Parts: sequence; C-alpha cells; structure tokens
Amino acid sequence: MLKEWSKGTKPDGEELDRRLEEARAQLAARQTVIKEKKLPVLVILEGWGAAGKGSVLGRVIRNMDPRFFKVDVGKEPTEDEQRRPFLYRHFVKIPEAGKFSFLVGSWMKEVTKGLVQGELDEKAYNNRLASIKCFERQLTDNGYLVLKFFFHIDEKEQKKRLEELLEDKHTKWRVSEADLSQNRNYKKWEKAYDGYMEQTNQSSAPWYLIDSKNKKWAELQMLEFMVRGIDTALMNQSQAVPLLQNHFPLKTIPKLSEISLKDKVLEEKEYREELKICQKRLSELHNELYHKKLPVIIAYEGWDAAGKGGNIKRIAAALDPRGYEVHPIASPEPHEKARHYLWRFWNRLPKDGHIAIFDRTWYGRVMVERLEGFCSENDWQRAYNEINEFEKELADWGAVVIKFWVQIDKDTQLERFTLRQNTPEKRWKITDEDWRNREKWDLYEEAVNEMLQKTNTAYAPWHVLESNDKKYARVKALKTVIAAIEEKL
Amino acid sequence: MLKEWSKGTKPDGEELDRRLEEARAQLAARQTVIKEKKLPVLVILEGWGAAGKGSVLGRVIRNMDPRFFKVDVGKEPTEDEQRRPFLYRHFVKIPEAGKFSFLVGSWMKEVTKGLVQGELDEKAYNNRLASIKCFERQLTDNGYLVLKFFFHIDEKEQKKRLEELLEDKHTKWRVSEADLSQNRNYKKWEKAYDGYMEQTNQSSAPWYLIDSKNKKWAELQMLEFMVRGIDTALMNQSQAVPLLQNHFPLKTIPKLSEISLKDKVLEEKEYREELKICQKRLSELHNELYHKKLPVIIAYEGWDAAGKGGNIKRIAAALDPRGYEVHPIASPEPHEKARHYLWRFWNRLPKDGHIAIFDRTWYGRVMVERLEGFCSENDWQRAYNEINEFEKELADWGAVVIKFWVQIDKDTQLERFTLRQNTPEKRWKITDEDWRNREKWDLYEEAVNEMLQKTNTAYAPWHVLESNDKKYARVKALKTVIAAIEEKL
Repeated sequence: MLKEWSKGTKPDGEELDRRLEEARAQLAARQTVIKEKKLPVLVILEGWGAAGKGSVLGRVIRNMDPRFFKVDVGKEPTEDEQRRPFLYRHFVKIPEAGKFSFLVGSWMKEVTKGLVQGELDEKAYNNRLASIKCFERQLTDNGYLVLKFFFHIDEKEQKKRLEELLEDKHTKWRVSEADLSQNRNYKKWEKAYDGYMEQTNQSSAPWYLIDSKNKKWAELQMLEFMVRGIDTALMNQSQAVPLLQNHFPLKTIPKLSEISLKDKVLEEKEYREELKICQKRLSELHNELYHKKLPVIIAYEGWDAAGKGGNIKRIAAALDPRGYEVHPIASPEPHEKARHYLWRFWNRLPKDGHIAIFDRTWYGRVMVERLEGFCSENDWQRAYNEINEFEKELADWGAVVIKFWVQIDKDTQLERFTLRQNTPEKRWKITDEDWRNREKWDLYEEAVNEMLQKTNTAYAPWHVLESNDKKYARVKALKTVIAAIEEKL
Repeated sequence: MLKEWSKGTKPDGEELDRRLEEARAQLAARQTVIKEKKLPVLVILEGWGAAGKGSVLGRVIRNMDPRFFKVDVGKEPTEDEQRRPFLYRHFVKIPEAGKFSFLVGSWMKEVTKGLVQGELDEKAYNNRLASIKCFERQLTDNGYLVLKFFFHIDEKEQKKRLEELLEDKHTKWRVSEADLSQNRNYKKWEKAYDGYMEQTNQSSAPWYLIDSKNKKWAELQMLEFMVRGIDTALMNQSQAVPLLQNHFPLKTIPKLSEISLKDKVLEEKEYREELKICQKRLSELHNELYHKKLPVIIAYEGWDAAGKGGNIKRIAAALDPRGYEVHPIASPEPHEKARHYLWRFWNRLPKDGHIAIFDRTWYGRVMVERLEGFCSENDWQRAYNEINEFEKELADWGAVVIKFWVQIDKDTQLERFTLRQNTPEKRWKITDEDWRNREKWDLYEEAVNEMLQKTNTAYAPWHVLESNDKKYARVKALKTVIAAIEEKL
C-alpha cells in the first residue's frame, strides 16, 4: 500500500487553516451525535517512530470533550497478559457506545514487531492476522466504527527527526533503541507494514494513510477522514449486516427431543463411589494442568432448575481454590451492555493453568436475547458464527473448551419449581421470571436445538448432561471434564 | 500474640467429626443469609509456609456454593501495581455485598516480608501499618466483615513438612527457596508476624490464630470462627458505627456566601494571552512529571452549569493525550454500588507520572448521597474523615492532589440553564434532574460549606474557581495546577 499510494495534495497556508478550522468544528459537532446515536468509535494510530502520532493526536483532541474519549498507548504485554489469549488485552479495551477510544500503537504494532524481530514465524504471524481480521470484523459487524490511521514519513525524514530529538537534552530520552533500529532497518519494516496493511485492509475497516511530513497537514487529513468515517457509520447504523457463512466444520448432535432421560440414573451407593474416584482424578489433573499451564473453560447452559449449581459444585469441590473461578452470569450491567456482547466474557477469561467455570454463558445471545428481543434477528443470527470464532480463539490459544447443556424434561422442572416454592430456604432460587420462561418452553427448545446444531464444533463440542437424575448428571460431567483434559494433556 | 496464645483443645476423633459436620452445615446455611442481608465477607488466610492454608481452604469451600465466593492468591505486585499506591491492588479486590472473598496471602504477607528482608525500613513499615489499619477499619465501618486467620505451626513441624514435600517428586516444585529460608530464619519471622498481628489486632477485625498441626482440626477452627464471626456481623449490621474524630489538621476556608464573584473577570484579549502562556507551561510540566513519575490527581466539583466541562477541556488541551485520563463520574452502577463507595475511585487512580482528572468525585458521598438519602446520616458523617484518609494515602504516595470547587451564583445558573434549554445542540446537557437539584440550592450550599470546612487539608486543599466568568475560572484553574505541580517538583 505504501508504494502505490498517491498522497493527497497539501493545501497552502490560508486554505489549510480554513479547512482545519472547518474540520475541527465538524468533529466537535459529531461528538454529540455519536453520544446520542450510541456509536462506539475506535481510532487506531499506527506508523513510523517519530512520525508524530502523539502530537497530531494531541491537536485532534484539543477540540473534543475529554469526557467522551480515552487514550491508550500500546505497551509490551505484561506477564499477566501473556498468560491470556493474544486478543485479550485488546478486546478488554474497546470503547463503550457513544465514546471514542484512541489507541496509539495497537495490535498492528505488536505483530509487525513480532514478525520483523523474528519472534513470530510465518505460521504464527498468519494466525495472528486471521485473529485480527476476525476481531475487527466482529467489532464493525456489531456496530463499532473502527478507524485505522498509518502515519507515514520516509526514511530520510525519520532519520532527520530522530537526530533532532537526540540533539536536545529535553527530548533525548524520547528516542529509544527501537526507534534507531527501525530507521537502520527501514526497508525491512516497510515491507512488514505494507504486508500487514494489505492483508487487513477490509472495506468495513480500511486503512487511511496519513502523509505526516507536516503536522498541521497531518492533523487535517486525520480530522477529515474521521468526520467522513463517522458520517458513513451513522448513515449505515440502521443497516443489517450481511451474515457470514459458518466456516467451521460442525459435528452432528441429536435434538433435545431425541435424548432419552429415562435410563440415565445412578444409585446412591454407586454415585458415592464414582464421585469419589472422579473427584480424586480431577484433583490430580488440576495439579498437572496448573503445572503445564493449560487453561480450561467450562461453560454451563441448561433449563432452569436443571441442577447446574449442584453440578458445578461437584466439579469445584475437586479443585484447588487458588486455581479456578466460577462466573455466575446474570443480565449485563449498563457498562457491559454498552459494549460488544462478548466483551464481558473476554474480561473473564482465565490465565493459563487456571479453570474458569461459567454458570450461563455467551450463548445468552442466541437464547434469552433472541427470545426476549434484546437484540435484532440479524444480531443473533450472526452470533452463531461469532461464537464459533470466539471459541476457536480459545482453542487455538490452547484451552480445553467444554460446553454442557443440562437437560431435564418439562415435568421434572415443574416438580423442582414446586419444591423450591414450598421450601423456605430454597425459595430465593425461584422467581416469577422462571415461571415466565417456563411458559416459553417450546420456543426455548427450538432455540436450543438450533444453537446446538450450529455451534457443535470439533474444538468446542457440546455435551448433554441428562439431569432428571442429578447424580447421574454430576458423574457424567466429571467424567467428561476428565476425559477432555486427559486428551489434551 | 503467638507466644502467649493458648491453643484450643483438639477434640478426639468422633467428637471432631461431629462438630465438623455441624459447622459445615452452619456455614452452608449462612451463605443464603449473607446473600439476603448483602453482607460482604473478606476472609484473609495468612501463616507459615507449608502450614496448609491452601488445603484447609479447599476443605472449607467444599460446602459452599461456588457462585458466592472468589479465591485470590497474594502475588508479588506487578510492575503496573508498583506504580500505584500500596493499597491499590488490595482495594480493587474487595468483595461485593453478599459474597465471600478469600485471600490466601494478603497485605500482611507483603509488609512482613518487606520488613524481614530489609526492603522496608522502620518508618516505611510503620506507614504501611497505619495505611492497613485505616483500610481495614474503613471496610468494617462500611459494613464489611473482615476475618483474619493465621495458620500456625512450629519450627520443627515446618521443617518436617518441607522435607516431606521435597522428597516426593510430585510435590517438590511446591517448595520455594523462600519457604526454606523462612524455616532457617524462623525466629526472625516469628517476631515479624507477632509484631504485625499485635499492631493490627483491632476489635472490628481481630486475628484468629489457627493451630494448624492437624488438617481436620484446622478446618474445624476456621469453620467455627467463620460462623461465629458472621453471626456477630449480622447482629451488628443495623448498628451505627462510632464516628472517629478527624485527626488531620484543617485549614480555614471561606463559606460560599463570602466568596465574591463580582470582580473575577478576564477580558478576551488578556484571556487569550494568559491561556496560551499557562497551557505552554503546563505542557512543559507534564513532560517533566511524566519523566519524574509524579502522579497528579485533579478533582472537580461545582454547581450544575458552573463550567466544569469547559474548564477541564482547557487543562486537557495542554496535556499529552498519552499521559492523562478524564473520568466522568455518574451515579454508580450496580457492581459499584455493591462495594465500598471509594472502590470505584481506587479503581481509577492513575499510574505514577500520569494525571487523572475527575469530573465529579468521591465527594458525592457528602453531597448528593447525603441530600438524596442514598446513604445514612452516620455514613456521610463518617465520610469526611474517610475521605481525608483516602486523600492522605494519595498524598503520602507522592501525588499532587488538587480539588476545585467551581462556583457560580444562582442567577448565573438560571441564565445558563435557560440558554441550554433554548439551544438545540446544548439541550442534551440539561435534564429534569438539573432543575430538581436547583430547587435544593440552599440545602446543597449548606452541604458544600460543611464539606469544604471538613476536608480542606494541607495535603489536599480546596481551591474555589469563581466561574461567573468562565474565562477567569479557566485561567485560575491552570495557574493553580501549575503552581501545585511546580511546588512538588
């Protein structure tokens, strides 16, 4: 892109000032609209060392209300971040609806550096690129505006700037060895930048090259691109996003109605024995996976009163409390609702060597959010693929991903609801909402069936736990978790 | 404490099992009550290496619902955490109402280690202790139950256990050089532990020593202490907390009615000139404080429509966007409301070398929360001292703390409200709530006066910005910030 790029023409003095003034006013005016229309805007600033990203950004935001934006500077990943999936530290920083996030140095910086310095081989680099494209597309598909700027200066100009900075004792400290090395290896970096931008130049999130030789001119380019980008995004906001075809191989899975619950029982004595053996084994495995830094993610979905809580407890009882966490998932809080629906799950991913158990999950998107109309049809239709992508990230990171559907029949649910209603210390477990959901049993069953069919991937398969007899379901859950971990180890 | 401690008597086999069963059932039953009564419970596990903290905790939580607790293991502070106040990483982890947090190794571990290894001199150590006592007291005063356990084994027993662990190749990796060194220096550590516990043994958060020679017995002690502690806390929940006298020297400050707004104006030309000079100077200082790792916290409070936003914008315009953040503070979200009211501000503290600007602040406790009855009288009365303590932590950490009250008169507010109402692009800035608050002007004025008097400390003084003329207020704000930073540098 850098080579065949035809730069815009820098207007001369008066014209430049006039357009600057106009563009500044336009951006200032867009802020209120963005707030009103709840558009989240992610602005990425990449480019050569000493190209002036920071100072141009300083000018751009001078006319913005500081309550409406955040600025983040791309740093080396911390030790904690290195123990999570590559995208984790980027995903958790996405802006909320109605606000701007400026990232000075983003994932591009991270992976091009990895490539140039030989820390990423070609395969690893290409995997990263695939993750990034998917990430950016998921953002724009879910209503984000992603603006990507590359600040360009040529080799000579960079050299001149670095030398000037080095000469002044107040600015000397700002020149790092990395900057100098980049200038010495300009051609190599140019190739890396160029290749990266070629591959990630998607129509929903295109690259804007900024001729950065002159600060005022760079500011004008950035302002004008931003205003244009915002206007386009606002215009498109109400449009449905095309559905991508699922591109992950799926395994067949029976419908709920085909699952027999009848013979799935366990006598008390057998249960006690099996439970003990399984918990002992899981406990050993936990020790081992901690040691080998294997992350494990266990996701629970199922009917109300199917016995999720008790089931989770039997898993947890076998684990070292310092190495796992249970995440009960309720309806999202305002700051969660204001972001991509997967954001709160990215935020709760475990470190490697740790286990995260989700009591209800991201599948809410295609169940309750679908049925209660909390998102559009296009949103939940798109979600099957997005969720497959999300779980693929987890699996590629090395995680064992286990998904449980805890199944009971309608009569059993009624029995348990009634018991809860009539037992004072269990009454908090049952709410009017549970009864309302029960009335929609058939609709839910249809949604669950569709969900199971469309997200039963080889790398993150569903397991049905027949739970009319809770004891049977608990032992089956333990055995499933054990088998999955053993296979991976 | 360790020496004069009279251990309880371990019951023999059958009796032990019976009491264990009873205590387990009691703790399980308490969970629902805690949830219902919204009691947050923080459980700290400290003690000798190899004393069995982890495995006893594993037993204790086996009977708990994993959705109601979190376990955290005390680690060395990360680089990022080292750039915040000492208590930061601990405060951000406090549990929410109705849940348990277990900390295996807490601030005690951190500071006793610092003392024994000579990283903290006596003065620094004593400062840490003062912070810790204040922190724990603030938690219990604000309705937290803090349970502190120390797992004790003697020198010989520790040696035996470490040797046993070393002999088995599966457990060998669990013995660190630090554990071995602790056993070699048992006496020195004993003195440090003892001194720490003596000093932090407050009646609202006492230490419980656990005789940890036998696992079952240790579990029983912990369970019984927990149940007793919970019952006491529940009983005391409705009681008002005694008010501590403010022990920070206060400077006098005039009442709002004594502040003249009349002559506080700036002509356009003078304003332009001053603004330019001040912003240039602040920009230089920002560079310097980034370099010298000085943290700066700027807090804005003031009447609605007093011009806080525009004022902040003039400060922000002088700053490098990578080195500051503006935090607009609205009413707390559910997860924030479920914790100590200062939690969301601890969470937003800057790293050293960075500037945090708060658009509305922790003073909401003694203004809107007081006047709208969102907390009890005892709560807001207590808050003056708690806030002084909070700001003292910040100042002791090395931060420049600047607090602005942006002052206008009632007529000016009416003018600005009316203008906002009549200007389409400003209308979002005015809500019914603003009008309702205006009706309570006199009540607010009284609350503000009390707040200014009671929190005008030398280390975090208030500055009134006379803002009938916004230009005057902006320049004064800039000059105040500049002077405060210059003084510190």
